[in-house]
Amino acid sequence: MKLLRFGPAGQEKPGVLDEQGQIRDLSGIVADFAGAGVSLDTIAHIDSLDLAALPLAAPEQRIGACLGWVPNFYCIGLNYARHAAEAGMDKPQEPILFSKAASALSGPFDPVVIPEGSEKTDWEAELGVIIGRPVHNISQDKALSCVAGYCTVNDISERAWQLEHGGQWIKGKSAPTFGPVGPYIVTADEVPDPQALAVKLSLNGETMQDSGTADMIFGVAEIIAYMSRFMTLLPGDLISTGTPEGVGMGANPPRFLRAGDEMTLEVGPLGAQRLPVVAAG
Amino acid sequence: MKLLRFGPAGQEKPGVLDEQGQIRDLSGIVADFAGAGVSLDTIAHIDSLDLAALPLAAPEQRIGACLGWVPNFYCIGLNYARHAAEAGMDKPQEPILFSKAASALSGPFDPVVIPEGSEKTDWEAELGVIIGRPVHNISQDKALSCVAGYCTVNDISERAWQLEHGGQWIKGKSAPTFGPVGPYIVTADEVPDPQALAVKLSLNGETMQDSGTADMIFGVAEIIAYMSRFMTLLPGDLISTGTPEGVGMGANPPRFLRAGDEMTLEVGPLGAQRLPVVAAG
Repeated sequence: MKLLRFGPAGQEKPGVLDEQGQIRDLSGIVADFAGAGVSLDTIAHIDSLDLAALPLAAPEQRIGACLGWVPNFYCIGLNYARHAAEAGMDKPQEPILFSKAASALSGPFDPVVIPEGSEKTDWEAELGVIIGRPVHNISQDKALSCVAGYCTVNDISERAWQLEHGGQWIKGKSAPTFGPVGPYIVTADEVPDPQALAVKLSLNGETMQDSGTADMIFGVAEIIAYMSRFMTLLPGDLISTGTPEGVGMGANPPRFLRAGDEMTLEVGPLGAQRLPVVAAG
Repeated sequence: MKLLRFGPAGQEKPGVLDEQGQIRDLSGIVADFAGAGVSLDTIAHIDSLDLAALPLAAPEQRIGACLGWVPNFYCIGLNYARHAAEAGMDKPQEPILFSKAASALSGPFDPVVIPEGSEKTDWEAELGVIIGRPVHNISQDKALSCVAGYCTVNDISERAWQLEHGGQWIKGKSAPTFGPVGPYIVTADEVPDPQALAVKLSLNGETMQDSGTADMIFGVAEIIAYMSRFMTLLPGDLISTGTPEGVGMGANPPRFLRAGDEMTLEVGPLGAQRLPVVAAG
């Protein structure tokens, strides 16, 4: 299934695409796609419904972030070898884990705001993994069983704030609109191999990132198993799994976002984002 | 007011201490102390009630974590000069920001579990600040106006996981039970100066930390103003503001938690935690 949230910003309702690609309103079934609203149990319940019997949403709806909130917005750093090289960093020996502020969540067609004082706002197309049940110390061979679904993520990053202010990366990852997610939560049953997805991003029509999850250093199952040694993952947790080469910081000379730019990005069949870039104010 | 959550683990209800120190049940007023449940508006509403007219909780209640969940569990690192020195790190030029997994939240009298594979689980008594309204780019002189209240936090840390696995600290801060908070949310009106609070922690009755928030490098108002440049702070966000000297890592030789230990800690008038330490499994 393709799950989504539709309606005006801040008033989104949960919905699902039917066989005709129309949005069916799930607001009578689930409060929101967040936390327990994206648990494996909730998704199994939605999957058991006759979608044709659900109310149709009015046409031409705005599509919002595919998650209403997240218990945790985790990210994996330097998870593609060529991206680590372009960032001037060593290939990691184990997954690098950091987080974004939950308040960075944003819609897949909403403006990305270059924050006040930023000179190095950059893009990162990524595969997002949404957890569907609590897991702690899960083995790699069982790890994918806890995945509710996948989504396209743009891990927008202010490089000066990330790298030049004390060593911890969260400061550069967390400005408002720095976390576009969606348009869809594509349920795990429709993504048999998360390591076989194209990852692409264009800036103003020019291809900047063109790679695939086959090139990840640490695959999704390994990331989940690894993380679960250190923490309990919760239903609705989002893990953005790292970006391939082709970010602005790695260009020669470096190239960063400016007001008036437009990013388009997509990850396999998870749906495309189109993000205009605007100045703060 | 002293707000708290009482009842069996996972089924806590919100409550408030009345003038006699009895718990009044607020579950008819607010769903939980979390997110909008600790907004300034909600707290003003509770403050307007006649507490004596609210139902009394049954006596001898378990007290749980003072927050049911958190949008973000932020922490400030190395925010006391002598702690930076004992950690062998330079005094920071600006606040060091990282986060804990939200799933680390734990009660103030619940066992702290040494996770499987841990050899360096350590304590950190800290002042916690709970945000009461959304703020972005707030000035330092206005920053305290967004504080809903304060609480005692123990920022439990696995030092090997924090410092020997790739540079980002979140891995060592996030195991289940690594975030005891409470017992109380003490509303901001009862803490006129957050830089005048004693911070103390004892291990098995022996004083390990005995300092105060007057020694912070960056005070609460400066931390909030600084963070708000990088992100929007949300109602219910928890910021743990750093620990003074006296952690186990800084002892000679280093000393870490073992099953059977008991920590007691308190921050000013925010209430004491008593935490037995147990092994995983």
